Amino acid sequence: MPKLLLDKERCLRNMENMARKAASQNLGFRPHCKTHQSAEIGSWLRDFGVDRITVSSFSMAHYFAKAGWKDILVAFPFQPGEIENLIDLSGQCELSILVDSPASLPFLKHIPQRINFYLDIDTGYGRTGIKSENTDLAEQIIVKAGANKHLYFRGFYCHAGHSYKPGSPDDRKRIHQKAIKDLEGLKKHFNTLDPKLLYGDTPNCSTQQAFGELDEITPGNFVFYDLIQFAMGNCGLDDIAVAMECPVAGRYPSDERILVHGGAVHFSKESMLMQGRSIYGQLVQQAESGWLQARKTLYLNNLSQEHGLMEQCGDLVNRVSIGDRLLFLPVHSCLTANLAREYLTLSGERITNIHSS
Amino acid sequence: MPKLLLDKERCLRNMENMARKAASQNLGFRPHCKTHQSAEIGSWLRDFGVDRITVSSFSMAHYFAKAGWKDILVAFPFQPGEIENLIDLSGQCELSILVDSPASLPFLKHIPQRINFYLDIDTGYGRTGIKSENTDLAEQIIVKAGANKHLYFRGFYCHAGHSYKPGSPDDRKRIHQKAIKDLEGLKKHFNTLDPKLLYGDTPNCSTQQAFGELDEITPGNFVFYDLIQFAMGNCGLDDIAVAMECPVAGRYPSDERILVHGGAVHFSKESMLMQGRSIYGQLVQQAESGWLQARKTLYLNNLSQEHGLMEQCGDLVNRVSIGDRLLFLPVHSCLTANLAREYLTLSGERITNIHSS
Repeated sequence: MPKLLLDKERCLRNMENMARKAASQNLGFRPHCKTHQSAEIGSWLRDFGVDRITVSSFSMAHYFAKAGWKDILVAFPFQPGEIENLIDLSGQCELSILVDSPASLPFLKHIPQRINFYLDIDTGYGRTGIKSENTDLAEQIIVKAGANKHLYFRGFYCHAGHSYKPGSPDDRKRIHQKAIKDLEGLKKHFNTLDPKLLYGDTPNCSTQQAFGELDEITPGNFVFYDLIQFAMGNCGLDDIAVAMECPVAGRYPSDERILVHGGAVHFSKESMLMQGRSIYGQLVQQAESGWLQARKTLYLNNLSQEHGLMEQCGDLVNRVSIGDRLLFLPVHSCLTANLAREYLTLSGERITNIHSS
Repeated sequence: MPKLLLDKERCLRNMENMARKAASQNLGFRPHCKTHQSAEIGSWLRDFGVDRITVSSFSMAHYFAKAGWKDILVAFPFQPGEIENLIDLSGQCELSILVDSPASLPFLKHIPQRINFYLDIDTGYGRTGIKSENTDLAEQIIVKAGANKHLYFRGFYCHAGHSYKPGSPDDRKRIHQKAIKDLEGLKKHFNTLDPKLLYGDTPNCSTQQAFGELDEITPGNFVFYDLIQFAMGNCGLDDIAVAMECPVAGRYPSDERILVHGGAVHFSKESMLMQGRSIYGQLVQQAESGWLQARKTLYLNNLSQEHGLMEQCGDLVNRVSIGDRLLFLPVHSCLTANLAREYLTLSGERITNIHSS
């Protein structure tokens, strides 16, 4: 069956590069662990001075708290269905949550101990958060939360996810600069509360050079990167640290088509357009250790549940045999890794994740 | 967190309808279990006379063999990486595999006991299989396999998956009729071997009325159906037996937007176009037991890893509160169910699946 290979050296290099960048900009570093969802991979971050993390669900927070992390931000607007998880976790670590509505606060009335909260700020992405100009709403929440002695306002959080939308490097720079400016404005407006500014998405953290008065960055995808990040110019193809190894299960020379075992339950259905066609992975060439860019650029361009097809693959169909193993870089490593039960390093070590039984 | 709700009554009704249809057409019924991937849900099929199943991987075959199934077809072209699994399984059940190339046969040389094989036939889908007119290739494989005393040729298998491609009911009928005609041609050509004809995809098995000389049908999705099947006219909205229950985590009235906890790791990134936009789920209304069609048709139209957004949701944003639970029908129930760790029936019973720990 397909295996998710992990090039640990690349992963460590990606971690080191991002940690260095944060340090050089005098920024705290609170990496998002939703990409790898692995206690062991998370532990590698400690060697780069990381002592706090970001996650996107309470189940992930539980998993990483159990793995010994003591400072965890759940970067998803708090909703009351999680109150028991929250109370449980607040006894295990310094727990921070996101709030973007006063309606969430009554549900936090009976928390028995300290919880930090950040206001989730929308600088233009349009997914979650208080619009950055709406200081009234921000103030209303801060004041209302002040009545709860266990609820601590810590600052503002922004995921400028519109950095992923199509656009030029200049467009992305404008998105980044507006986000910084908006967050700085909030810091100034609420300066008596000494708010911290948390910010982070892999595109901006990888490519931008000016971070103003930000305090911490929270990128996640950078540990593995993927084809989306590569296509945006946020990493090199040689920075992508995971590849799916898929056995060849069929050869159809007259149609120039290869079937591999590797489908939507392995890669996810995340696609991107290349030359007008949806693709789900890019072929790389197996090397003595790991993989190299293939001489010819070929894609996995049709997926069903377990089937992956390389169509119009030209002469390759004559050079592979049933049982050979082909390697593909994933379009979106977060979703691909989420479907895996483990990683296999190039030295053959199995690395568990949150889904390992 | 999001929960995958299962309306057991609908699921049983879907099973009963398909079993009746097979019986009325004098067809064997070998349902595909890749949709539910659950031993318990699979066991319900026994009440409708089912004693044989189809799966799409050896890990699924293992899981269902352990659950007591004694006749299992792995409907994916055999590749040699699975040889140990195959040998192991052949001691536990009557195992059938698909073959579409003579190159697979040498890997089966040392099987210690009986394995059945079907030739995978391509009647126009273009995913796997021997093109139906290529009787020479079929014969070549059958003859070569004959040298292996443990390898039994049982017949022809066809998944006419091009029935899912856009087209009119007449187009789909033509696809179906061609598949039947092609398979009947093969049956006639190889009549001395008394080959069985296996066929099945949910669209054709749900809507077509003439199955010629087919022997068994192997549909899978029908147990749950989903929005893709509904859009094609293969089921009613009231036949869809699973819905994702997602807590409301954010309300953004000025943008007519609602955030739910329910993202790509719950629904999958499978999308379909509705009114020119990609959608990932359709809102249904919670009822005393289960759910009903909502008065207004609204969609989940933006997904990230854990976030689901209903955009342009109109007045609904004023009628929901943070913590409310909204229900959505999935676009593709196979991929949604594959991401779940369990099902929750309307009476609150937890039903495990292959991923439950």
